[in-house]
Order: sequence, then structure tokens, then C-alpha cells
Amino acid sequence: MLPVDLVADLSAVFPADRFYTDPVDCYSYAYDNSRKIFPPDAVLFPLTAEEVQSIVRLCNQYETPLVPRGRGTGTAGGSLAEQGGIALSLERMLNIIAVDPANRVIVAEPGVLNQSIQDAAKPHGFFWPPDPSSAAYSSIGGNIATSAGGPHAVKYGTTRDHVLGIKAVTGAGDIIKTGCYTTKGVVGYDLTRLLIGSEGTLAVITEATLKLTALPHAVAGITAHFRDLVSCTSAIVQIMAQPQLPSALEFLDTGALDLIRSRDADMLPTDSQAMLMIEVDGSANEIPDAIAAILKACQSDGLIDAKQVQDTASLWKARKTLSPLLREVAPKKINEDVVVPVNSLPEFLAQLTQLSARYQLANVNFGHAGNGNIHVNLLINPDDPEEVKRAEQCLDEIFDLVIRLNGTLSGEHGIGSEKRAFVSKEIDNVTLELMKHIKQLFDPKNILNPGKLFP
Amino acid sequence: MLPVDLVADLSAVFPADRFYTDPVDCYSYAYDNSRKIFPPDAVLFPLTAEEVQSIVRLCNQYETPLVPRGRGTGTAGGSLAEQGGIALSLERMLNIIAVDPANRVIVAEPGVLNQSIQDAAKPHGFFWPPDPSSAAYSSIGGNIATSAGGPHAVKYGTTRDHVLGIKAVTGAGDIIKTGCYTTKGVVGYDLTRLLIGSEGTLAVITEATLKLTALPHAVAGITAHFRDLVSCTSAIVQIMAQPQLPSALEFLDTGALDLIRSRDADMLPTDSQAMLMIEVDGSANEIPDAIAAILKACQSDGLIDAKQVQDTASLWKARKTLSPLLREVAPKKINEDVVVPVNSLPEFLAQLTQLSARYQLANVNFGHAGNGNIHVNLLINPDDPEEVKRAEQCLDEIFDLVIRLNGTLSGEHGIGSEKRAFVSKEIDNVTLELMKHIKQLFDPKNILNPGKLFP
Repeated sequence: MLPVDLVADLSAVFPADRFYTDPVDCYSYAYDNSRKIFPPDAVLFPLTAEEVQSIVRLCNQYETPLVPRGRGTGTAGGSLAEQGGIALSLERMLNIIAVDPANRVIVAEPGVLNQSIQDAAKPHGFFWPPDPSSAAYSSIGGNIATSAGGPHAVKYGTTRDHVLGIKAVTGAGDIIKTGCYTTKGVVGYDLTRLLIGSEGTLAVITEATLKLTALPHAVAGITAHFRDLVSCTSAIVQIMAQPQLPSALEFLDTGALDLIRSRDADMLPTDSQAMLMIEVDGSANEIPDAIAAILKACQSDGLIDAKQVQDTASLWKARKTLSPLLREVAPKKINEDVVVPVNSLPEFLAQLTQLSARYQLANVNFGHAGNGNIHVNLLINPDDPEEVKRAEQCLDEIFDLVIRLNGTLSGEHGIGSEKRAFVSKEIDNVTLELMKHIKQLFDPKNILNPGKLFP
Repeated sequence: MLPVDLVADLSAVFPADRFYTDPVDCYSYAYDNSRKIFPPDAVLFPLTAEEVQSIVRLCNQYETPLVPRGRGTGTAGGSLAEQGGIALSLERMLNIIAVDPANRVIVAEPGVLNQSIQDAAKPHGFFWPPDPSSAAYSSIGGNIATSAGGPHAVKYGTTRDHVLGIKAVTGAGDIIKTGCYTTKGVVGYDLTRLLIGSEGTLAVITEATLKLTALPHAVAGITAHFRDLVSCTSAIVQIMAQPQLPSALEFLDTGALDLIRSRDADMLPTDSQAMLMIEVDGSANEIPDAIAAILKACQSDGLIDAKQVQDTASLWKARKTLSPLLREVAPKKINEDVVVPVNSLPEFLAQLTQLSARYQLANVNFGHAGNGNIHVNLLINPDDPEEVKRAEQCLDEIFDLVIRLNGTLSGEHGIGSEKRAFVSKEIDNVTLELMKHIKQLFDPKNILNPGKLFP
């Protein structure tokens, strides 16, 4: 429960429609896509950086947890008030402050949706590349807090590559301004990227200067089916070793394809054991070269068929069929987003097959193969304690394998609360201690999203 | 002078050919391209991270300044032992640890030259995009310490966009490992980019994982001459507002063109008052579209001539003529590298003309117009104290102008010692204090490059 004096102080500043304390109202801010539930004791809706600052200062005074939150679409529990306290919803800081195509920049408040940025940029021939699957609904504040990325990261990078500067309120209650308005700038330390991906543990983002990219003139797609996993992963390696970078390179394994076939037997070739969905973009004149180079890289004895598709919507059809199906057959599946070097994908996926067999777990793998970023889904029944235990052991081995292959535990979801237990597998103690000291520096009373990100 | 005991401790570990104390030997490590001279008391040449760590620990013990140094090509004094102490030359840490084209990665020690990375990447169809003018001679350690960039940053970004991970020894003597080996990764805070551009004040880089980019298949060039500055700056704005991003967009002003004409009257049209050198790259098939789009963006009443050049070497001829000439006519010129938003270039350059007239200073401006990054050269005679004073006042007004236009004081040179006095114009006190605390965290005894980067 919140201290009575804190509630009184906040009530003096925030009207009731921007300060929820009724548990019924607060419940909508209790969850994210991790499917954990932690109702906050209150929800605040600031409209300005100064209001955020006043809230942070009060939470420091009363040592009350404050959990910044965009649209709650994260999968790692990063926006949940696990220790109670206040959910700080930035969803009403909705101003697009500047659309500046001459400088390829949009300045916006954190609650602005990724899609709204795209809508503002498009008429000028630009887009903002971060493309998490939640893009239509997730906010740029959340995208920045997690350094969100998606299928097009293989060509365009993730959020950290597309933010020039940030205004934020630190956990200590200071308003800071990082980075600059221009694409070049080397004055002072790079606090912009220190905040990007820090999952709301260092500061509350109140404004961001986003770098825009020109929309490609043309887009084309290729689908490729393989008789076996080895041929498919070899093709991935060959595509990424040649210069024509695809704008997306998505992989579906046998488990994923079988699931799709169980619903629509005709959508996929019966003998396909692995599939690639490949997108290329650029000027209309360069597309044919890119298509040819990628089709060539797909060639092997195990290739069933690789061909250009007529429209890119049909390219994504199998992939879009998959997610709802997965949720249907295993609503409480474990969904990881590990990354291995592209060249290690063959070994990783082969060993993953062995691990799921050994632990008798149904396993569906797909994802952003061009970055080596694979969504590993363990389709468990959480009501079967024995299966849950096997899944935990299997997951532990998967993470060990990822680290052994020089990979990373998370490519886009982040740590939040879900992966805390595994962070020490990747980051050594000395480096981790340094990160904890940075946290203390920004947030000396540990009020901002306490307990998250660290083991 | 170094403490006698420190010299004894270091002598016990480092042979004489890796530990210089003779002032004659040390003098070669006294200068950089800022033309300031600060001889260190000693020079050490470590070969491993562990050796760097032992040096850092001893310098902590004796509270002795330690100044990391690549090849000393910086222009801001960042690598000079201004307070005496030890120059830590990383020039003998020369191993390329891995060339991994399948993963588009090279892992290298800090002393490896930028050019050596290019040579290692090229046979595989890749390059490493950071391209400071010193690239043939400067080291990747120095490139990373300054987040170096050059003409191609307009398309490819600067060093901070092309490093995946770093191993380093902090000022406290801890060996840390940041980032990862893959292009995606969101585990923990982004210490990689915190170190990039930190000018050797936080940690000594001992290894870097560099992200490679595919070499373009084709390159083409355009030169454009304008009757007046306004037409030229309008063309810059129009080129950058359309989607076909040039791979370089360099600008020369009247002062620069007059200087070139004074040496070679026939190289340039007599009535040209401003010139653009524009490069585009990509697949062979997309070049014609890019050329057409850029030629179109150059059109105005003030355009004398815009045309494709036959070879890109000739494209850079005027630019390459300029630098030696400048050094000849004003060996002690003041050379700044301010940045303004591209759309503010017309106003910035117009006001710069007025300022140099008001302060009666010869002024040559050129640079990376596509990033708004202009090298402002005040051609002063440093032996004329009255002129020096006028230059200082003018510079102060130039920096105020840059900040008023939402720009930044340095696009690629960094702060070092040269721009310390002006940092507070750009970074507010609260943010600056936070940066100072980060410095204390990494380097509690302030031994690493003390006095640099901060006002």
C-alpha cells in the first residue's frame, strides 16, 4: 500500500482522472505480454517532464517503487510493478513535437505510438526503422526502453541505431538532455544509448529525437523451402555472407511448419522441413540483382523450391498464421529470443533438436535468422509440474549453449523479470557490478523499476 | 616526474624497449594534430589486456596520470599527457584476432590501423565504414575513443554505429567486456557506446568486435558549382530531403575555392562561389536513378553546372588540393568541426560570413554538408595577439550560433583539451554532473586522461 502522505501529496497535484488508486482501475496496468500479473497500488498519467520530475521526487521522498510503462506490450515483465508501488503510464504524453523532414528527424513524446511516427513520416518519404511485432500498438518510449527491433533489423538495425537524443528524468529526479539533433555529434559521453535498452531502470524518457530513414522505392519477396534443416541453415549462412543484405530473413522450422499444416494442409509443400521468408528492398532497379543473388545463395541439394512471390503480403502469410496458432495450442508456452552468430545457426538448431528430444518437449523455432535471432518456443503445459521442471532444465541448457556459441540471451525482448536468473551466464561479475553502480548513480534510492534487469 | 618506486615497479615488468623514460624517446609521444606539445614522463607499450591492467593498477597506487594513445592523429589534444605522467601507447597491440566474414565481424586489438581492417575485410567483399581522413594511419582504438567519422558518415554513420562489443580495462583497473558478438543484443546496459567517444577517460580499450558492411558494387560522383552560397546551401537541403542518400556530400565555400584557384587557376570555373562534391554508391543498377535524383535536387537559378564526373578520384581532386594549401597559408589556423541541422546550413553559413567580416578574419569553410558538419577554419597569425583575441571572440560567437541553431560543437574531433571551455554551452550542468559521476565510477582516482573532455 502507498503511504497516506504520498497519496495526499499526489492528489494535491494530479486530478482523479490522472491518478488511479481504485484496484479495479489499476488492474488494467497489472500485466504485459509476459502474462504475469502484478497490480500496481496506483497509476499516474503525467503530461509533462516537470510532472514526471515531481512524481520521481515524491517517490524518492517516500521510497516508493515507480514503474514506467508505455503500452505494456513487452514480453519480459519489464513494465510490471512487481514490488507494488506506482505504475507511471506515459500513454498520455502524446505530442509529436516536430516533424522535420529536411533534417530527417521527428521529435516526440514517449507515449506516441510507433505507428503514429510511421504515419507522420510516410508523407515525406521516410520511416522510422524499429519494427517490433507490436509496432501498431506499442509506444516509442517502450521501444526505446527495450531497444526494440523486429524482422527488418537485419538491414536497418534496432532502436539504438535510430535515436539521436533523449530528454529524461533520472531516478534521482534530475531532468537531463542527452545526445543532439544532428546525426553527428561527439560532445560528452553517449548517455543516449546508455538509456536505450535500460528498461526504465535509470530514467524516465520524456522526449526523443528520432532519426528517420528514406522509404525504399521497391520491395520484393522470396520464399524458399528445404528438405532438411541443414540445407536451410546453410542457405542462411550463405545469404548473409554475400553482400546483398536482405531487408528481412525469417526462418520457420519443422515444428512451426507442421503446426501451420495442421490448420491448412495446402499452404506449404508437404516435404518442406524448413522455410525461409526473405524480403529485399531498395530502388526498383536493384531488386532483380538482389533477388538473383539470394536465389543463388539458397541453392543446395536440399532445396525444394525457392521463388519470388508476387506480393509481399503473401510472403508473410505463413509467419502470420503461426503466432495465433502457437497461442492456441500452448497458451503458456515459454518464448525465448536468443541470438547466436549466424554462422553458428546450423549447430545451434541441430543441438536444439537434440535437447528438445532429450527433455521430451515440443519445440517450435522461428525468427529473425539474418540476425541469428531465434524465437525458441517450448510448448509446455504449465499445469504439469514434471513437464515444467524438464522445461526449466532444458532452458538452462539452451542458454548455456547460446553462450558457448558466442551468442546473447536476448535479441529484442530484454531481461525484465523473466531472464534475470540467467544474466550472469552472459555478463561477468565485474561488468555487472559496474552496471549496478551506474544504476545507483542514476537512481540512488532504487525507486525506478526496482529489481528488474539484474540477477 | 614519475615516483621512483613506480619506475622501479614498471621496470620489473616491462623491458626497456617497451618502457621509455628518456625524454628524447618520449618526445615522439608529446604531440598530436592539435599542434600542442606535452612530453610524457614515460611511454609504455603493453601487449595484452593483463599488462594494461597491471599498469592501470600501478598508476592508481601512485596516483599517476595515464594517457591512452593510438597513433596520435587527433586534432583536439585528447591523447596528450597535459598533466605529465605516462603515455600508454597501444600501437603494439596489433593482432587481428578474427576475420569472420560469415558473421560480418572482425575482432581486433586497439593498435590495428583502420586501413589494416579495410585490407582484411576487402577480399571478403566487406569494409568497416568509419573513414576519418587519417584512416590510413590511425588506429581503431583511437577511432573508437573518438567515435571517428568522415565523409561517408552521411550514409554509413560513425564509429559508434559499427562496433558490437569491447573489452577494456577501466580506470579502476577492472577488465570488463561489453556488448556482444551479434548485431542484436539487449542484455544489460549499453556500455559499448558509453566507451565509444569517451576519449580514453573511462577505460583503455584492449579489444573490439567490429561490424562489417558490404562494399558497394558501384560508385559514382557528381560535381556542382554555384554562383552564390544561397543556391548551394539550398541544394544541400534539397539533396538531403529526398530519399536517395548520397554516400558523401562535401561542400567548399568561396574562401576554399579562391585558395585553390590561387594555386591552379584552371581547376574551377571562375564564377563558382560554392561547390559540392557528391558521391553515390550501391548496386550498378541503382546508380543512374541516384545520379538523376541528385542532379535534379541541385537545380536552381544559381547553379552554374552540375555533372557526373568520370572517375571518383577526380571528384575529390579539389578537396585534396585544399588541405595542404590551408596548412601552407595558415599553419596555425583554428580548425573547428561544428555541426548544425542540415536545414540550418543556409543561415549558419550566411551568419558565418558576417561574423568573419565583423571580426576581420580570413575564413575558409568546407566539410561534410550532408551531416551539417562544417570545418570552420579561421586563418589567423598566432603571432599577432590582437588577431588572436579577435579570433577567440569570433569563435565564441560561432559556438553560440551553433547552439542557437540546435547544433553541436563537434561532429568528429571531440573535446580533448581544445574545446573544454565551450562544453557548458552545449551540455547543461545537471547532465554534465552526471557524466562526471560516471567518470568517477569508472576511474575513481582520476588517473585516466585527467582533465580532458570536461570543462
